[in-house]
Amino acid sequence: MTFHLGIDGGGTGCRAALAGEDRRVLGRGMAGPANIASDPEGALRSILTAARAALADAGLTEGELPRLRAGLGLAGANASGTVERLRAALPFASVRIETDAVAAVKGALADEDGIVAALGTGSVFGIQRGGRVRQIGGWGLVLGDEGSGAWIGRALLSRALRAVDGFVPMTALLREVVAEHGGPEGVVTFSLGAKPVGFARFAPRVMESSDPAALAIMGRATADVAEAVDLLQAGEGLPVVLLGGLGPAYAERLAGRWTLRPPRGSALDGALWLAYEGAGP
Amino acid sequence: MTFHLGIDGGGTGCRAALAGEDRRVLGRGMAGPANIASDPEGALRSILTAARAALADAGLTEGELPRLRAGLGLAGANASGTVERLRAALPFASVRIETDAVAAVKGALADEDGIVAALGTGSVFGIQRGGRVRQIGGWGLVLGDEGSGAWIGRALLSRALRAVDGFVPMTALLREVVAEHGGPEGVVTFSLGAKPVGFARFAPRVMESSDPAALAIMGRATADVAEAVDLLQAGEGLPVVLLGGLGPAYAERLAGRWTLRPPRGSALDGALWLAYEGAGP
Repeated sequence: MTFHLGIDGGGTGCRAALAGEDRRVLGRGMAGPANIASDPEGALRSILTAARAALADAGLTEGELPRLRAGLGLAGANASGTVERLRAALPFASVRIETDAVAAVKGALADEDGIVAALGTGSVFGIQRGGRVRQIGGWGLVLGDEGSGAWIGRALLSRALRAVDGFVPMTALLREVVAEHGGPEGVVTFSLGAKPVGFARFAPRVMESSDPAALAIMGRATADVAEAVDLLQAGEGLPVVLLGGLGPAYAERLAGRWTLRPPRGSALDGALWLAYEGAGP
Repeated sequence: MTFHLGIDGGGTGCRAALAGEDRRVLGRGMAGPANIASDPEGALRSILTAARAALADAGLTEGELPRLRAGLGLAGANASGTVERLRAALPFASVRIETDAVAAVKGALADEDGIVAALGTGSVFGIQRGGRVRQIGGWGLVLGDEGSGAWIGRALLSRALRAVDGFVPMTALLREVVAEHGGPEGVVTFSLGAKPVGFARFAPRVMESSDPAALAIMGRATADVAEAVDLLQAGEGLPVVLLGGLGPAYAERLAGRWTLRPPRGSALDGALWLAYEGAGP
C-alpha cells in the first residue's frame, strides 16, 4: 500500500495529513512554523516532526518515511533557491513542493477550474485551469500584497500621517490612530519596527468602520482585489473562492461581480492533492 | 565673546561649525553618524566629537563647551522622546534641536520666506514664513517619502513584479531588473532585507531612462512632489528651492511651475542659524 503525505506549512505552524490510496485520511500531525524562506532548517524540522506525528497517529512507524509520496504547500517556496535545498534534504520517495498559495488553490477548488483569492495578513491570487495553477501577487507587503490585512493597516497609518500634513481630510478614525501612538512621530516609530502582522492588526477596524478615511482605503483595496481577479478571469466567468480572514468582508463588497463559491477544502487538503498529482498534471 | 555652534547630523555623518558674534565661521569639525532615533548614544558621541573638533580648529579648548549656544539639525529628531533625552545630555549653554529638514530649510532660505523640497534617499518638504518653519512629509519610506530616491527604486521593483503578473506591460527596463535578481523571487528576497538606501540605488536608472515604465514611475513621483509643494504654497507664489541628489532632475521636470531658486546655504549653515535664533523667532 502506498501512503500519501500532505504538508501545509506556514509562518505560524505546520500540519500534516497521511492518506491511503483511497484518499481517506488515516493520520494527522502538527508541528511548529515552516517558512522555508525565513528559517529553512526550522522548517525542515517542523515538516519531519509533523510527518512522524501523522505516521504515529495512523499506527505506522517512521520506517515508512522513505516510502511516502509527499505534497508540500509551503510559505516561502517562491524565494530563490529554497525549494531545491529543501527537496534535497527530505527523505520521502517523491516530493512535490509548491507555495502555500498553490496548495490553498488546490484545496479550495479540488480538480475544478476556478479562481482563488487568499486574503489574510498577505494577499495572493491563483487560477486553476485543467489542473494547472498560476499564481499572481503574493510578493509581500514591501512590494505588493494589495488588499491584504497588512496593506489595509499600513494604508491607515500612512493616511493618518497624510491627514496630519493636510493632504487629505483629518477624520475621527485617523485622529484616534495618531493619538494612540502619542502623535505622528509615534506612528513613524511603530512603522519602522512593524512586521506585516503588526500592520494587519489595524485591518478589522478599517473594514468595520464607516469613517470616510476607512471607506476610502477599503474602496482602493476592493478595487485592487477586483483588478487581480479580473486579470485572472481574462473575460471568462470562472467561479471565485475568497479565502482567509478577510474573505467574508470582501465577499460582501464584491457580491454579484462574479460567481462566488465556498472552498471545497483546506490548504492541507490541497497539499494532499499535490501528493497524489506528484510531479504535476 | 559668545560662540555659536551649528551641528548638522544625519545617518552618514555629523558636521559642526563654530562662529563668533559676527557669524563668521572660525572652526569646523566632523564625526560619525548622528541619527538620534536609531542610535541616540552614538549620536551624542558624534555630536560632542564634532563640537570638540570645531573648537580645536578655532584654537579654543573644550572648556568652552558649557558656554556654547548650539543649534542642531538632526535626523530622527521627529521620533518620539528622542529630543528631550538628547537635550538633557548635552553640555551647552543653550540648545535648539530641530530635524535635519528644518535645518536644511533654514540653510536654503536664510531669513527669507519660501519653500524647500529635499529630495534624496528620503523626501521632506518645508515652508518658512516670517522665520517659522513648517515641515510636511519626511515620515520614512514605509509610510511616506513620496518622490524620494528610495520611493522611486521601490516603485521600480514593485512595477517589475506587477509586470511579471501581467498587471502592467513588461518593458526592457523591468525585464532587466528582474533578470538581475535571478527572477521575481530574487526581487522579493532583495526587498525583504533592503533599507531605503538600497532601494534608492535604482533611482538614477529610472530618472535617466526613457523606458515607458520609468516614465510612468517618474510621472507619478513628479506629481507627488508637485502636490506637496502646491499644498505648502496654498495659492501663493513663494520661491521654491529643490535640494538633494534628485533636486536637479526634478527642477527640469518642474520648470515653469514655480519660481525655482538655488539654496543660499547648506543644512550646516541652517544649524548655525538655529543657534543664533536660540529658542525660536
